Amino acid sequence: MGTSPLVTMLTDFGVVDPFVGVMKGIIHGIHPVARVIDLTHEISPHDVRAGAFMLLTAYRYFPHGTVHLAVVDPGVGTGRRAVVVVTTHYLFVGPDNGILTWAANDDGMRFSVSITNDEYILSQPSTTFHGRDIFAPAAAHLCRGVEPEKLGERIDNPLVLDFPEPQYHGVSRIVGSIIHIDRFGNLVTNVRLTDDEKSRIVTVTLKDVSIPGISATYRDVQGKKPLALVGSSGFVEIACNKSNAADILGTRRDDEVIFHLED
Amino acid sequence: MGTSPLVTMLTDFGVVDPFVGVMKGIIHGIHPVARVIDLTHEISPHDVRAGAFMLLTAYRYFPHGTVHLAVVDPGVGTGRRAVVVVTTHYLFVGPDNGILTWAANDDGMRFSVSITNDEYILSQPSTTFHGRDIFAPAAAHLCRGVEPEKLGERIDNPLVLDFPEPQYHGVSRIVGSIIHIDRFGNLVTNVRLTDDEKSRIVTVTLKDVSIPGISATYRDVQGKKPLALVGSSGFVEIACNKSNAADILGTRRDDEVIFHLED
Amino acid sequence: MGTSPLVTMLTDFGVVDPFVGVMKGIIHGIHPVARVIDLTHEISPHDVRAGAFMLLTAYRYFPHGTVHLAVVDPGVGTGRRAVVVVTTHYLFVGPDNGILTWAANDDGMRFSVSITNDEYILSQPSTTFHGRDIFAPAAAHLCRGVEPEKLGERIDNPLVLDFPEPQYHGVSRIVGSIIHIDRFGNLVTNVRLTDDEKSRIVTVTLKDVSIPGISATYRDVQGKKPLALVGSSGFVEIACNKSNAADILGTRRDDEVIFHLED
Repeated sequence: MGTSPLVTMLTDFGVVDPFVGVMKGIIHGIHPVARVIDLTHEISPHDVRAGAFMLLTAYRYFPHGTVHLAVVDPGVGTGRRAVVVVTTHYLFVGPDNGILTWAANDDGMRFSVSITNDEYILSQPSTTFHGRDIFAPAAAHLCRGVEPEKLGERIDNPLVLDFPEPQYHGVSRIVGSIIHIDRFGNLVTNVRLTDDEKSRIVTVTLKDVSIPGISATYRDVQGKKPLALVGSSGFVEIACNKSNAADILGTRRDDEVIFHLED
Repeated sequence: MGTSPLVTMLTDFGVVDPFVGVMKGIIHGIHPVARVIDLTHEISPHDVRAGAFMLLTAYRYFPHGTVHLAVVDPGVGTGRRAVVVVTTHYLFVGPDNGILTWAANDDGMRFSVSITNDEYILSQPSTTFHGRDIFAPAAAHLCRGVEPEKLGERIDNPLVLDFPEPQYHGVSRIVGSIIHIDRFGNLVTNVRLTDDEKSRIVTVTLKDVSIPGISATYRDVQGKKPLALVGSSGFVEIACNKSNAADILGTRRDDEVIFHLED
Repeated sequence: MGTSPLVTMLTDFGVVDPFVGVMKGIIHGIHPVARVIDLTHEISPHDVRAGAFMLLTAYRYFPHGTVHLAVVDPGVGTGRRAVVVVTTHYLFVGPDNGILTWAANDDGMRFSVSITNDEYILSQPSTTFHGRDIFAPAAAHLCRGVEPEKLGERIDNPLVLDFPEPQYHGVSRIVGSIIHIDRFGNLVTNVRLTDDEKSRIVTVTLKDVSIPGISATYRDVQGKKPLALVGSSGFVEIACNKSNAADILGTRRDDEVIFHLED
């Protein structure tokens, strides 16, 4: 029983309505010994890109074989497909709108399956809650060991969401952007630095703020002055020690961040 | 161990205080292999009717035998009874204030028990937190197989909360109301339609907005125009594609919704 | 498997980012049959004292042997130690900033260990997320039965956070303060009364409001008049029946509350 894989859940369903609880009820009905772990249910409604990024930062900290279920699904009830994406170490389940792309590519995509086999879908599925009727059952069946190919046909064209890559201007400038603002107001950029790049950073600028180099910890500057460091997910973050950088700097997602490097 | 029934929890305790965690500690102390699933803890404080509705929409998606624990309890510490309600497929535990009524009646109520046996109550129960001292222990004991009648005497007059039924004016008009607004701003009405009624809907009106008929999916209209559809819980909802109908229409709970049908 | 101790989690990580889910992934990777219960993740960012108080009110309702993991950690990445505190009935894991003090002292502290053994820490720990890299692994190893001393050396000077004790002015006056405001707006004070003190209370005053004696339940007064009662955690609370005392009285944490007693 300790060997049944975990199921993680990431949605934009919130925790005010019982949507998430209902999905867990379905999962346990199909696979009573399933263990379900919440990643987050507070993705902004319909924000597929935010869901994709949260999944990218979290998926790898789970045992191999974990089934990652991600449902941010503005297209529910339309023709968009429901998919299983099998990667090197994990199984991902969700709508075919790109939400699985960044994590799946990061781990190494092997193949995708379109979930179409009625045997693994709740009878008379609704047009508005595929989390309950299609995705939760699929995750539960995968968790109990059903082969992905049993759920439907392989497809070779899952919808791909492009990652907003930073732009490299020669060796002396990287233009990135804020991709996520976390609970503490830390500004997570889309930039991952090589050790060489990291050692050559002179300043990081965000709006009219200029930050000297990359710090090791939040406490490396005094007061509420902003600093840049490599965050726990590997992306450079801009933070203020014990305070909320997003509030202090008035920053929003997609704001530009420029890294200036020594030649 | 896969055969121990689930316990679900629905409360107005929120997740800022450790009230819910403490109840789970009590449950696991009594029944270490219990599996507890959160439905929601974000019912507005003391809103028994909202709790009753959430429970109605969620309870049936759990394996038969599940113990549904629901605590929205403005009368805690007064003479109101604590009850177990046994239905066709489930066990419900909560205060005797009607919160269990709608789900229990929907599943078919068999009998009710007043929880009075000290053996199944924490010693020296507080007057303010029966969730911890009475309801969690009762749910845990039921989950480990204790017969409901062991917890106290059967009662034949549990408090009943009337469901706000829509009014039927002949065959051409149904006057309902908004009973719940969900996370996405979708307006859930108290109206369930027969197939015949559904096919005869001409317009649905809410305030000065008139909606032509029942749609199949959220995407059936363009832009932010409102539409009506049968939601995942079987009740008609008014929604706006990818946007928040409650905000756009300025709607509140209990607002009237009128369904006009062909004769 | 029912015998593996529980792990509880209390953090200021919120539930919008997947930080908590990631920590659970790490725990299950190390100890697949672990059972993790959330106390709260909504401690205000960096509010060590609030975390310490929540832990104090919650820890005792779990089976003996439970591992309580508490991470509110403004000093992450600096020299502050990571500790295990072993008490009479429990194991506590967290940063050495005092967050564990009040609960550990209440249960009876036995000894503390500084977590330094690399064997029980994730390789290449980050400087910003010790919850994932140090605390979650430590909790998981303790849960699977590793002796605390295996994680590092005993220390005899863990950082102690002083509890804000009320002041006793002779036998007729106790000057306390609001230490916590709960979800319902109830004002939790730092005062625990002996039976003798409780019987001698004449009035409780908060700002210009005077409350006559200690009530038994929230319903002991009519309307929205404030009352005082002994809350579920043993501390005196000031509440308003079915309404939010904090809003009605305009109270904030640390506001003074004076108890007047008969001689």
